[in-house]
Amino acid sequence: MSSACDETSYFTPRFNEAGLITAIAQDAETREILMVAYMNEEALRETARTGRAVYYSRSRQKLWRKGEESGNYQEVREIRIDCDQDCVLLLVEQKGGAACHTGRKACFYRRLKSGSMEELEFIDQTRLFDPAAVYKKKT
Amino acid sequence: MSSACDETSYFTPRFNEAGLITAIAQDAETREILMVAYMNEEALRETARTGRAVYYSRSRQKLWRKGEESGNYQEVREIRIDCDQDCVLLLVEQKGGAACHTGRKACFYRRLKSGSMEELEFIDQTRLFDPAAVYKKKT
Repeated sequence: MSSACDETSYFTPRFNEAGLITAIAQDAETREILMVAYMNEEALRETARTGRAVYYSRSRQKLWRKGEESGNYQEVREIRIDCDQDCVLLLVEQKGGAACHTGRKACFYRRLKSGSMEELEFIDQTRLFDPAAVYKKKT
Repeated sequence: MSSACDETSYFTPRFNEAGLITAIAQDAETREILMVAYMNEEALRETARTGRAVYYSRSRQKLWRKGEESGNYQEVREIRIDCDQDCVLLLVEQKGGAACHTGRKACFYRRLKSGSMEELEFIDQTRLFDPAAVYKKKT
């Protein structure tokens, strides 16, 4: 089960075959999980260097400087990595209070109803911003 | 930015091209992120049905009933899903207190030193079990 990267002090993030690593953003104070995204090496380096979260957008195929459109950027307090170094965890301060593109503070606003495999219930319907106003359509 | 799965009450997890979805286990009480793994549809269904976390091991290419070797299984309190339904979050009670195969309570026991892109510092060195004793070599 063990491998060399478990106990080393060398930061050796393991990017997948697409050159990406999973990145979780967690609120540094409340410990709420805000969002999950991906980083390529450039995004991870810029995040570490600047202290602001930068991801890689798979749909747009480019760096995604979180908050560049919405203004809701993330100040990064810590970058942690897991045992096998294939996932990073950012402890962040979320500016504007909302990490999710729907305007909610976090992306995990629904849960599976107990006993169901089909039905979700919403646990957060508070919008901290109006997505339609923030993300203006580029047509 | 928006898509149909953002606001629906239908649970429609989006598995990737390998048939997997990212799954985060978070301690239901302390909100510490314990581990990140993958599930296939069977693992997710069994988790929802039984209330115990089941993942899919990519290295062993089979279902991984967390705790089947170590006894440190996870009782699942809630299954949440994110806005675009490509990541699930389990709120769990970790039996034995340790989720990581290294014997530590969580997998994120190292952080990048401030200002470095190379050096990690350990933030948790407490082993709640001895990995060598728990995971007996099968040779």
